[in-house]
Amino acid sequence: MPDLLPPVYDNGFREKFAELLAWRRDVRRFKTDAVDKELIHKLLKLAAISPSVGNSQPWRFVSVEEPKRRAAVRSSFEQCNAEALASYSGEQAETYARLKLAGLDAAPVHLAVFCDEHPKEGHGLGRATMPEMLHYSVVTAISTFWLAARCHGLGVGWVSILDPADVTAALDVPVDWKLIAYLCVGYPVEEHSDPELVRHGWQDRIDLSTCYFQR
Amino acid sequence: MPDLLPPVYDNGFREKFAELLAWRRDVRRFKTDAVDKELIHKLLKLAAISPSVGNSQPWRFVSVEEPKRRAAVRSSFEQCNAEALASYSGEQAETYARLKLAGLDAAPVHLAVFCDEHPKEGHGLGRATMPEMLHYSVVTAISTFWLAARCHGLGVGWVSILDPADVTAALDVPVDWKLIAYLCVGYPVEEHSDPELVRHGWQDRIDLSTCYFQR
Repeated sequence: MPDLLPPVYDNGFREKFAELLAWRRDVRRFKTDAVDKELIHKLLKLAAISPSVGNSQPWRFVSVEEPKRRAAVRSSFEQCNAEALASYSGEQAETYARLKLAGLDAAPVHLAVFCDEHPKEGHGLGRATMPEMLHYSVVTAISTFWLAARCHGLGVGWVSILDPADVTAALDVPVDWKLIAYLCVGYPVEEHSDPELVRHGWQDRIDLSTCYFQR
Repeated sequence: MPDLLPPVYDNGFREKFAELLAWRRDVRRFKTDAVDKELIHKLLKLAAISPSVGNSQPWRFVSVEEPKRRAAVRSSFEQCNAEALASYSGEQAETYARLKLAGLDAAPVHLAVFCDEHPKEGHGLGRATMPEMLHYSVVTAISTFWLAARCHGLGVGWVSILDPADVTAALDVPVDWKLIAYLCVGYPVEEHSDPELVRHGWQDRIDLSTCYFQR
Protein backbone atom coordinates (compact mmCIF):
# COMPACT_ATOMS: atom_id res chain seq x y z
CA MET A 1 0.00 0.00 0.00
CA PRO A 2 1.63 3.27 -1.05
CA ASP A 3 2.00 5.72 1.81
CA LEU A 4 0.67 9.26 1.68
CA LEU A 5 3.10 12.10 1.22
CA PRO A 6 4.65 13.06 4.54
CA PRO A 7 3.66 16.43 5.99
CA VAL A 8 6.04 19.36 5.71
CA TYR A 9 6.27 21.90 8.53
CA ASP A 10 6.92 25.54 7.82
CA ASN A 11 8.46 28.14 10.12
CA GLY A 12 5.02 29.30 11.23
CA PHE A 13 4.18 25.86 12.60
CA ARG A 14 7.62 25.41 14.13
CA GLU A 15 7.31 28.70 16.01
CA LYS A 16 3.82 27.87 17.21
CA PHE A 17 5.03 24.44 18.35
CA ALA A 18 7.98 26.00 20.21
CA GLU A 19 5.50 28.35 21.87
CA LEU A 20 3.37 25.35 22.91
CA LEU A 21 6.44 23.83 24.57
CA ALA A 22 7.23 27.13 26.28
CA TRP A 23 3.72 27.57 27.68
CA ARG A 24 3.21 23.99 28.79
CA ARG A 25 3.10 24.10 32.57
CA ASP A 26 2.80 21.69 35.47
CA VAL A 27 -0.52 23.08 36.66
CA ARG A 28 -1.65 22.91 40.29
CA ARG A 29 -4.43 25.53 40.33
CA PHE A 30 -7.48 24.32 38.47
CA LYS A 31 -10.98 25.57 37.84
CA THR A 32 -13.58 23.00 38.83
CA ASP A 33 -15.32 23.31 35.43
CA ALA A 34 -16.04 19.91 33.93
CA VAL A 35 -13.98 18.63 31.01
CA ASP A 36 -15.74 16.88 28.13
CA LYS A 37 -15.12 13.13 28.40
CA GLU A 38 -14.94 12.87 24.63
CA LEU A 39 -12.07 15.34 24.63
CA ILE A 40 -10.13 13.32 27.20
CA HIS A 41 -10.71 10.24 25.09
CA LYS A 42 -9.48 12.03 21.98
CA LEU A 43 -6.32 13.14 23.81
CA LEU A 44 -5.67 9.61 25.07
CA LYS A 45 -5.99 8.31 21.52
CA LEU A 46 -3.20 10.69 20.53
CA ALA A 47 -1.16 9.58 23.55
CA ALA A 48 -1.56 5.99 22.40
CA ILE A 49 0.38 6.62 19.18
CA SER A 50 3.46 7.61 21.18
CA PRO A 51 6.65 5.60 20.77
CA SER A 52 6.90 2.39 22.81
CA VAL A 53 9.62 -0.20 22.99
CA GLY A 54 8.89 -3.05 20.56
CA ASN A 55 5.51 -1.34 19.99
CA SER A 56 4.54 -2.85 23.36
CA GLN A 57 2.06 -0.04 24.15
CA PRO A 58 2.29 -0.78 27.89
CA TRP A 59 0.35 2.35 28.98
CA ARG A 60 -2.77 1.75 31.08
CA PHE A 61 -4.88 4.84 31.75
CA VAL A 62 -7.20 4.78 34.77
CA SER A 63 -9.78 7.53 35.14
CA VAL A 64 -10.20 7.93 38.89
CA GLU A 65 -13.79 8.94 39.57
CA GLU A 66 -15.12 7.48 42.83
CA PRO A 67 -14.83 9.96 45.72
CA LYS A 68 -13.47 7.36 48.15
CA ARG A 69 -10.65 6.49 45.77
CA ARG A 70 -9.79 10.14 45.19
CA ALA A 71 -9.82 10.67 48.97
CA ALA A 72 -7.33 7.83 49.44
CA VAL A 73 -4.98 9.37 46.87
CA ARG A 74 -5.29 12.79 48.48
CA SER A 75 -4.59 11.30 51.88
CA SER A 76 -1.41 9.67 50.51
CA PHE A 77 -0.34 13.03 49.09
CA GLU A 78 -0.95 14.83 52.37
CA GLN A 79 1.07 12.32 54.34
CA CYS A 80 3.98 12.20 51.85
CA ASN A 81 4.00 15.98 51.54
CA ALA A 82 4.14 16.43 55.33
CA GLU A 83 7.07 13.99 55.45
CA ALA A 84 8.81 15.86 52.63
CA LEU A 85 8.33 19.20 54.38
CA ALA A 86 9.86 17.74 57.54
CA SER A 87 13.00 16.84 55.57
CA TYR A 88 13.78 20.52 54.88
CA SER A 89 14.79 23.16 57.39
CA GLY A 90 15.12 26.92 57.75
CA GLU A 91 14.32 29.12 54.79
CA GLN A 92 14.01 26.14 52.45
CA ALA A 93 11.30 24.62 54.67
CA GLU A 94 9.45 27.93 54.66
CA THR A 95 9.61 28.13 50.85
CA TYR A 96 8.51 24.49 50.53
CA ALA A 97 5.55 25.08 52.84
CA ARG A 98 4.37 27.95 50.64
CA LEU A 99 4.41 25.89 47.43
CA LYS A 100 1.23 24.38 46.09
CA LEU A 101 2.37 20.99 44.83
CA ALA A 102 -0.81 19.30 43.65
CA GLY A 103 -4.19 20.19 42.20
CA LEU A 104 -5.96 17.19 43.71
CA ASP A 105 -8.45 19.48 45.47
CA ALA A 106 -10.03 21.06 42.39
CA ALA A 107 -9.02 19.25 39.19
CA PRO A 108 -12.13 17.70 37.64
CA VAL A 109 -10.21 14.87 35.94
CA HIS A 110 -7.78 12.53 37.69
CA LEU A 111 -5.83 10.08 35.55
CA ALA A 112 -3.59 7.46 37.08
CA VAL A 113 -1.17 6.13 34.48
CA PHE A 114 0.33 2.69 34.95
CA CYS A 115 2.78 0.47 33.11
CA ASP A 116 1.83 -3.13 32.47
CA GLU A 117 5.08 -4.85 33.45
CA HIS A 118 4.29 -7.92 31.35
CA PRO A 119 2.49 -6.84 28.18
CA LYS A 120 2.09 -9.55 25.58
CA GLU A 121 2.47 -6.87 22.92
CA GLY A 122 6.00 -6.32 21.65
CA HIS A 123 7.17 -9.85 22.45
CA GLY A 124 10.00 -8.52 24.59
CA LEU A 125 11.72 -6.72 21.71
CA GLY A 126 14.14 -3.97 22.76
CA ARG A 127 13.96 -4.47 26.49
CA ALA A 128 16.19 -7.41 27.31
CA THR A 129 19.12 -5.23 28.37
CA MET A 130 17.09 -2.16 29.38
CA PRO A 131 13.83 -3.44 30.92
CA GLU A 132 13.08 0.09 32.16
CA MET A 133 12.22 0.95 28.52
CA LEU A 134 8.66 -0.16 29.31
CA HIS A 135 8.34 2.61 31.90
CA TYR A 136 9.92 5.13 29.56
CA SER A 137 7.38 4.20 26.89
CA VAL A 138 4.58 5.16 29.27
CA VAL A 139 6.31 8.48 29.95
CA THR A 140 6.38 9.32 26.23
CA ALA A 141 2.60 8.80 26.19
CA ILE A 142 2.22 11.15 29.16
CA SER A 143 4.34 13.79 27.38
CA THR A 144 2.15 13.52 24.30
CA PHE A 145 -1.05 13.75 26.34
CA TRP A 146 0.29 16.82 28.15
CA LEU A 147 1.06 18.76 24.97
CA ALA A 148 -2.15 17.68 23.22
CA ALA A 149 -4.15 18.79 26.27
CA ARG A 150 -2.41 22.18 26.19
CA CYS A 151 -3.52 22.62 22.58
CA HIS A 152 -7.07 22.52 23.92
CA GLY A 153 -6.44 24.98 26.76
CA LEU A 154 -6.28 22.18 29.34
CA GLY A 155 -3.68 22.10 32.08
CA VAL A 156 -2.00 18.96 33.36
CA GLY A 157 -0.23 18.53 36.70
CA TRP A 158 1.94 15.49 37.42
CA VAL A 159 1.75 14.55 41.10
CA SER A 160 4.65 12.43 42.32
CA ILE A 161 4.44 13.15 46.06
CA LEU A 162 2.52 9.94 46.61
CA ASP A 163 3.22 6.45 47.88
CA PRO A 164 2.74 4.29 44.76
CA ALA A 165 1.64 1.36 46.95
CA ASP A 166 -1.19 3.47 48.42
CA VAL A 167 -2.38 4.55 44.98
CA THR A 168 -2.18 1.07 43.50
CA ALA A 169 -4.18 -0.33 46.43
CA ALA A 170 -6.77 2.45 46.28
CA LEU A 171 -7.40 1.88 42.59
CA ASP A 172 -7.64 -1.89 42.68
CA VAL A 173 -5.53 -2.52 39.58
CA PRO A 174 -3.64 -5.70 38.61
CA VAL A 175 -0.59 -6.43 40.76
CA ASP A 176 1.80 -6.26 37.83
CA TRP A 177 0.89 -2.69 36.97
CA LYS A 178 3.43 -0.12 38.13
CA LEU A 179 2.30 3.45 38.84
CA ILE A 180 4.15 5.87 36.57
CA ALA A 181 2.15 9.06 37.09
CA TYR A 182 -0.90 10.53 38.74
CA LEU A 183 -2.20 13.37 36.59
CA CYS A 184 -4.59 16.16 37.51
CA VAL A 185 -6.33 17.58 34.44
CA GLY A 186 -8.59 20.60 34.02
CA TYR A 187 -8.74 24.22 32.94
CA PRO A 188 -6.08 26.28 34.71
CA VAL A 189 -6.97 29.23 36.94
CA GLU A 190 -3.96 31.19 35.73
CA GLU A 191 -1.48 30.95 32.85
CA HIS A 192 2.21 31.67 33.01
CA SER A 193 5.15 31.12 30.71
CA ASP A 194 7.52 30.51 33.65
CA PRO A 195 7.40 27.37 35.83
CA GLU A 196 5.74 27.66 39.23
CA LEU A 197 8.97 26.53 40.95
CA VAL A 198 10.91 29.33 39.24
CA ARG A 199 8.27 31.94 40.09
CA HIS A 200 8.17 30.92 43.73
CA GLY A 201 11.94 30.85 44.21
CA TRP A 202 12.54 27.11 44.51
CA GLN A 203 14.66 26.35 41.43
CA ASP A 204 15.64 28.47 38.42
CA ARG A 205 16.17 27.17 34.94
CA ILE A 206 19.77 26.31 34.10
CA ASP A 207 21.54 26.99 30.83
CA LEU A 208 21.76 24.24 28.23
CA SER A 209 25.55 24.66 28.13
CA THR A 210 25.76 22.99 31.55
CA CYS A 211 23.88 19.94 30.22
CA TYR A 212 25.61 19.47 26.85
CA PHE A 213 28.83 17.56 26.28
CA GLN A 214 30.90 16.28 23.37
CA ARG A 215 32.84 13.05 23.24
CA MET B 1 6.50 41.28 35.94
CA PRO B 2 3.17 40.88 34.12
CA ASP B 3 3.01 37.78 31.99
CA LEU B 4 2.20 37.87 28.29
CA LEU B 5 -1.18 36.66 27.13
CA PRO B 6 -1.14 32.88 26.73
CA PRO B 7 -1.32 31.52 23.20
CA VAL B 8 -4.58 30.13 21.89
CA TYR B 9 -4.57 27.16 19.52
CA ASP B 10 -7.12 26.82 16.75
CA ASN B 11 -8.33 23.67 15.04
CA GLY B 12 -5.84 24.15 12.24
CA PHE B 13 -2.91 23.95 14.65
CA ARG B 14 -4.45 21.07 16.58
CA GLU B 15 -4.85 19.05 13.40
CA LYS B 16 -1.32 19.79 12.28
CA PHE B 17 -0.01 18.81 15.73
CA ALA B 18 -1.99 15.55 15.65
CA GLU B 19 -0.47 14.88 12.22
CA LEU B 20 3.01 15.51 13.66
CA LEU B 21 2.32 12.87 16.33
CA ALA B 22 1.02 10.47 13.70
CA TRP B 23 4.07 10.85 11.44
CA ARG B 24 6.69 10.74 14.19
CA ARG B 25 8.57 7.50 13.65
CA ASP B 26 11.35 5.54 15.29
CA VAL B 27 13.71 5.86 12.33
CA ARG B 28 16.40 3.28 11.57
CA ARG B 29 17.20 4.12 7.93
CA PHE B 30 19.09 7.38 7.65
CA LYS B 31 20.75 9.37 4.92
CA THR B 32 24.35 10.18 5.74
CA ASP B 33 23.79 13.90 4.96
CA ALA B 34 25.19 16.12 7.68
CA VAL B 35 22.86 17.88 10.10
CA ASP B 36 23.54 21.50 11.03
CA LYS B 37 24.99 21.61 14.56
CA GLU B 38 23.12 24.83 15.24
CA LEU B 39 19.86 23.05 14.52
CA ILE B 40 20.68 20.25 16.98
CA HIS B 41 21.51 22.88 19.57
CA LYS B 42 18.22 24.68 18.93
CA LEU B 43 16.29 21.41 19.34
CA LEU B 44 18.12 20.61 22.58
CA LYS B 45 17.21 24.05 23.91
CA LEU B 46 13.57 23.18 23.33
CA ALA B 47 14.09 19.79 24.99
CA ALA B 48 15.52 21.59 28.01
CA ILE B 49 12.22 23.33 28.75
CA SER B 50 10.50 19.99 29.20
CA PRO B 51 8.91 19.17 32.55
CA SER B 52 11.23 17.83 35.24
CA VAL B 53 10.58 16.84 38.82
CA GLY B 54 11.25 19.76 41.16
CA ASN B 55 12.64 21.56 38.07
CA SER B 56 15.72 19.38 38.56
CA GLN B 57 16.58 19.38 34.81
CA PRO B 58 18.63 16.18 35.21
CA TRP B 59 19.11 15.62 31.45
CA ARG B 60 22.69 15.39 30.21
CA PHE B 61 23.11 15.28 26.44
CA VAL B 62 26.30 13.79 25.05
CA SER B 63 27.08 14.22 21.35
CA VAL B 64 29.05 11.11 20.42
CA GLU B 65 31.53 12.05 17.72
CA GLU B 66 34.78 10.11 18.01
CA PRO B 67 34.83 7.05 15.73
CA LYS B 68 36.27 4.74 18.41
CA ARG B 69 33.44 5.63 20.79
CA ARG B 70 30.81 5.09 18.09
CA ALA B 71 32.43 1.76 17.26
CA ALA B 72 32.20 0.65 20.89
CA VAL B 73 28.48 1.50 20.97
CA ARG B 74 27.89 -0.33 17.71
CA SER B 75 29.74 -3.35 19.01
CA SER B 76 27.54 -3.38 22.10
CA PHE B 77 24.46 -3.24 19.87
CA GLU B 78 25.68 -6.09 17.69
CA GLN B 79 26.35 -8.34 20.66
CA CYS B 80 23.07 -7.54 22.44
CA ASN B 81 21.12 -7.93 19.22
CA ALA B 82 22.67 -11.34 18.52
CA GLU B 83 21.75 -12.44 22.05
CA ALA B 84 18.21 -11.14 21.58
CA LEU B 85 17.84 -12.99 18.28
CA ALA B 86 18.97 -16.20 19.98
CA SER B 87 16.13 -15.85 22.50
CA TYR B 88 13.48 -16.23 19.78
CA SER B 89 12.72 -19.32 17.74
CA GLY B 90 10.90 -20.45 14.62
CA GLU B 91 8.97 -17.88 12.62
CA GLN B 92 9.46 -15.20 15.29
CA ALA B 93 13.24 -15.57 15.04
CA GLU B 94 13.02 -15.25 11.26
CA THR B 95 10.93 -12.09 11.54
CA TYR B 96 13.30 -10.66 14.17
CA ALA B 97 16.31 -11.34 11.98
CA ARG B 98 14.73 -9.39 9.12
CA LEU B 99 14.09 -6.27 11.26
CA LYS B 100 16.46 -3.33 11.13
CA LEU B 101 16.61 -2.23 14.74
CA ALA B 102 19.13 0.59 14.76
CA GLY B 103 20.48 3.29 12.47
CA LEU B 104 23.95 3.34 14.04
CA ASP B 105 25.53 2.62 10.66
CA ALA B 106 24.43 5.75 8.81
CA ALA B 107 22.99 8.34 11.20
CA PRO B 108 25.22 11.44 11.17
CA VAL B 109 24.32 12.47 14.71
CA HIS B 110 24.51 10.21 17.76
CA LEU B 111 23.20 11.55 21.06
CA ALA B 112 23.53 9.62 24.28
CA VAL B 113 21.11 10.94 26.87
CA PHE B 114 21.88 10.42 30.54
CA CYS B 115 20.23 11.23 33.85
CA ASP B 116 22.33 12.85 36.56
CA GLU B 117 21.25 10.75 39.55
CA HIS B 118 22.24 13.46 42.04
CA PRO B 119 21.49 16.86 40.52
CA LYS B 120 21.77 19.76 42.92
CA GLU B 121 18.92 21.42 41.05
CA GLY B 122 15.46 20.74 42.44
CA HIS B 123 16.67 20.10 46.00
CA GLY B 124 15.02 16.68 46.03
CA LEU B 125 11.51 18.04 45.60
CA GLY B 126 8.95 15.54 44.35
CA ARG B 127 11.17 12.47 44.30
CA ALA B 128 11.32 11.20 47.86
CA THR B 129 8.68 8.52 47.31
CA MET B 130 9.21 8.09 43.55
CA PRO B 131 12.94 8.53 42.90
CA GLU B 132 12.44 7.22 39.37
CA MET B 133 10.87 10.61 38.57
CA LEU B 134 14.38 11.81 37.68
CA HIS B 135 14.58 9.25 34.87
CA TYR B 136 11.07 10.10 33.70
CA SER B 137 12.06 13.77 33.52
CA VAL B 138 14.81 12.88 31.07
CA VAL B 139 12.32 10.90 28.99
CA THR B 140 10.04 13.94 28.66
CA ALA B 141 13.02 15.87 27.25
CA ILE B 142 13.64 13.07 24.74
CA SER B 143 9.97 13.16 23.68
CA THR B 144 10.18 16.91 23.15
CA PHE B 145 13.40 16.62 21.16
CA TRP B 146 11.88 13.89 18.99
CA LEU B 147 8.83 15.95 18.01
CA ALA B 148 10.81 19.15 17.54
CA ALA B 149 13.26 17.27 15.29
CA ARG B 150 10.35 15.95 13.22
CA CYS B 151 9.17 19.54 12.65
CA HIS B 152 12.47 20.07 10.85
CA GLY B 153 12.25 16.89 8.76
CA LEU B 154 14.72 15.06 11.00
CA GLY B 155 14.21 11.48 12.07
CA VAL B 156 15.11 10.10 15.50
CA GLY B 157 15.67 6.46 16.41
CA TRP B 158 15.88 5.33 20.04
CA VAL B 159 18.27 2.40 20.37
CA SER B 160 17.76 0.33 23.52
CA ILE B 161 19.41 -2.92 22.42
CA LEU B 162 22.61 -1.94 24.18
CA ASP B 163 24.38 -2.76 27.41
CA PRO B 164 24.21 0.53 29.37
CA ALA B 165 27.48 -0.35 31.14
CA ASP B 166 29.28 -0.63 27.78
CA VAL B 167 27.92 2.72 26.60
CA THR B 168 28.71 4.50 29.85
CA ALA B 169 32.27 3.16 29.80
CA ALA B 170 32.76 4.04 26.11
CA LEU B 171 31.69 7.63 26.68
CA ASP B 172 33.70 8.29 29.81
CA VAL B 173 30.93 10.08 31.71
CA PRO B 174 30.57 10.55 35.48
CA VAL B 175 29.73 7.38 37.38
CA ASP B 176 26.46 8.75 38.73
CA TRP B 177 25.03 9.32 35.28
CA LYS B 178 22.52 6.69 34.19
CA LEU B 179 22.01 6.00 30.48
CA ILE B 180 18.40 6.66 29.52
CA ALA B 181 18.59 6.63 25.73
CA TYR B 182 20.94 6.38 22.79
CA LEU B 183 19.50 8.38 19.90
CA CYS B 184 20.37 8.24 16.22
CA VAL B 185 19.45 11.47 14.45
CA GLY B 186 19.47 12.38 10.77
CA TYR B 187 17.35 12.76 7.67
CA PRO B 188 15.30 9.63 7.01
CA VAL B 189 15.64 7.62 3.81
CA GLU B 190 11.91 6.91 3.72
CA GLU B 191 8.82 8.25 5.44
CA HIS B 192 5.86 6.23 6.63
CA SER B 193 2.84 6.91 8.77
CA ASP B 194 2.83 3.37 10.18
CA PRO B 195 5.48 2.06 12.61
CA GLU B 196 8.23 -0.14 11.20
CA LEU B 197 7.26 -2.95 13.60
CA VAL B 198 3.67 -2.87 12.30
CA ARG B 199 4.78 -2.81 8.68
CA HIS B 200 7.13 -5.74 9.14
CA GLY B 201 4.65 -7.93 11.00
CA TRP B 202 6.13 -7.83 14.51
CA GLN B 203 3.42 -6.04 16.50
CA ASP B 204 0.21 -4.26 15.48
CA ARG B 205 -1.27 -1.28 17.22
CA ILE B 206 -3.90 -2.11 19.81
CA ASP B 207 -7.13 -0.23 20.44
CA LEU B 208 -7.25 2.40 23.17
CA SER B 209 -10.26 0.63 24.68
CA THR B 210 -7.95 -2.15 25.89
CA CYS B 211 -5.79 0.42 27.74
CA TYR B 212 -8.49 2.59 29.33
CA PHE B 213 -10.21 1.89 32.63
CA GLN B 214 -12.55 3.64 35.04
CA ARG B 215 -12.50 3.38 38.81
